[in-house]
Amino acid sequence: MEKTDPIAVLDSGLGGLTVVSALRRIMPAEDILYFGDTAHLPYGNKSPAAVSSYVRNIIRFFLPMRPKHLVIACNTATAIAMPEVAAEFPQLPISGVIEPGARAAVAAAGTERLPAIGVIATEGTIRSKAYERAILRRRNLARVMLRPTPLLVPMIEEGRTATDPLVESALRQYLQSMVLSKVSVLVLGCTHYPLLKGAIAKVVGPNVRLIDSAEQCARDVALRLGRKGLLRGAMGSPDDTATDEPVPPSAGSLRTFVTDDPQRFALLASRFLEMEIVAPTLVNLTGTTENDPPALRAAG
Amino acid sequence: MEKTDPIAVLDSGLGGLTVVSALRRIMPAEDILYFGDTAHLPYGNKSPAAVSSYVRNIIRFFLPMRPKHLVIACNTATAIAMPEVAAEFPQLPISGVIEPGARAAVAAAGTERLPAIGVIATEGTIRSKAYERAILRRRNLARVMLRPTPLLVPMIEEGRTATDPLVESALRQYLQSMVLSKVSVLVLGCTHYPLLKGAIAKVVGPNVRLIDSAEQCARDVALRLGRKGLLRGAMGSPDDTATDEPVPPSAGSLRTFVTDDPQRFALLASRFLEMEIVAPTLVNLTGTTENDPPALRAAG
Repeated sequence: MEKTDPIAVLDSGLGGLTVVSALRRIMPAEDILYFGDTAHLPYGNKSPAAVSSYVRNIIRFFLPMRPKHLVIACNTATAIAMPEVAAEFPQLPISGVIEPGARAAVAAAGTERLPAIGVIATEGTIRSKAYERAILRRRNLARVMLRPTPLLVPMIEEGRTATDPLVESALRQYLQSMVLSKVSVLVLGCTHYPLLKGAIAKVVGPNVRLIDSAEQCARDVALRLGRKGLLRGAMGSPDDTATDEPVPPSAGSLRTFVTDDPQRFALLASRFLEMEIVAPTLVNLTGTTENDPPALRAAG
Repeated sequence: MEKTDPIAVLDSGLGGLTVVSALRRIMPAEDILYFGDTAHLPYGNKSPAAVSSYVRNIIRFFLPMRPKHLVIACNTATAIAMPEVAAEFPQLPISGVIEPGARAAVAAAGTERLPAIGVIATEGTIRSKAYERAILRRRNLARVMLRPTPLLVPMIEEGRTATDPLVESALRQYLQSMVLSKVSVLVLGCTHYPLLKGAIAKVVGPNVRLIDSAEQCARDVALRLGRKGLLRGAMGSPDDTATDEPVPPSAGSLRTFVTDDPQRFALLASRFLEMEIVAPTLVNLTGTTENDPPALRAAG
């Protein structure tokens, strides 16, 4: 593995671009490959078996491009597929969004005796109990409160922003139990949710520390690469107070691959992340079962 | 083709079951095969090319079961794929949800000089302009108002009902322009929407006639089969005032096939449609391109 090899990032669609945003801010010189599985989007309401096979096929697609690290930038996919794909592709360093998020949540809870830590995420992530396990492994005296919030992704993808009254009502409904139980930390357990960070902060109030799993995931990747001497160029700011600043001009490239509708993907990416995605490549990954190697071909 | 051959129904997931409900009420003796493409659900935000290839693969899956009629019980799929699959499978009578819905809308507008007809549907259906074309072909002096309402399907699938405040706010937001423009007819252009019929009626008021595309589609199928002498047994009530009555005991069978998560499908079906779905068969349709015949195998 070489410093100059790319970092590969996979997601069910658009949300993982919040991770890419953070990666580029922290490590502006890295080349990034991004795969958005828009034909199967959203993963949040698909079965574990289906999600695992999608992730496996995307990893097989990436292998010939020799990534130095693979990021599963989707909470549902991390929750469901991470352990088995890590075992299946031992030659490839793989990390996800859940461990870094859980670690940051426990750190943020500080020395509180029995901290209440909330997690909002898709149905699939919540059902997997992955956050619960990751938090309790680090801190066995904690109350973990889980809440599926399935409307937030479609709301964001419809173009609704923090000031939309429907977004506010949904957040108020979803977060009511968290507020009543006085959580001190709230994990945004879906890579779309940072786009509503301001609105979420307004509903839970200033005493709740928000953990952005996308930001934590990117910092974790930088640490892992740094430890192995695989970081390229100088590091940017790992400070999440900088998230609202424009992404610095990056020497690293970004190539994107999608399984459906490259135009819509580029449009949504520029609308929500102010990220210019140049001509995503349409890829057709056929074969979704464990035993079939997927036939790979660019269809666009 | 024989009277005893089944009717095949396809949909992206659950919504088409409202069509099945109406089919069973009107034609209780028919055997029905239902395919819910839950791995690709929802179709509403997928590209036309992808939706067409999904529909084509499902039809190829049905062919060996010798259906006497195929219903595309999904507005997005009808809007996008209907003309080309009708041409590609000339031996199979195919109908969809849009033509019957448009016909009923024009009939409901009556003798009004310049009727305002509203249509709510998914993004894909609206973008296709299929309803607009189908309405204007029958009545060229009409104002057709289209509104994508992408949150309604996830809201219904989350288990929210007409009395949920979030559903009410979303409907009020989505339908405001329809109310202001004084539409006299509103087409529920997605097979999920009949589940919110009461709440929609409340927002638009008693002077707006609602057209249920699922109900209209089922009546249309009964007419087509009747004309060919392919109807099995006596017909039930084609009256949509009867929609709230329990489905009569049916001599006909219902077999269901899904591409992901049979348990979730059966659960949602029983929760929203009070329809008992016995053990849906999990099917793996590989190959999504035009030239590859799909490999078919039951995976469950």
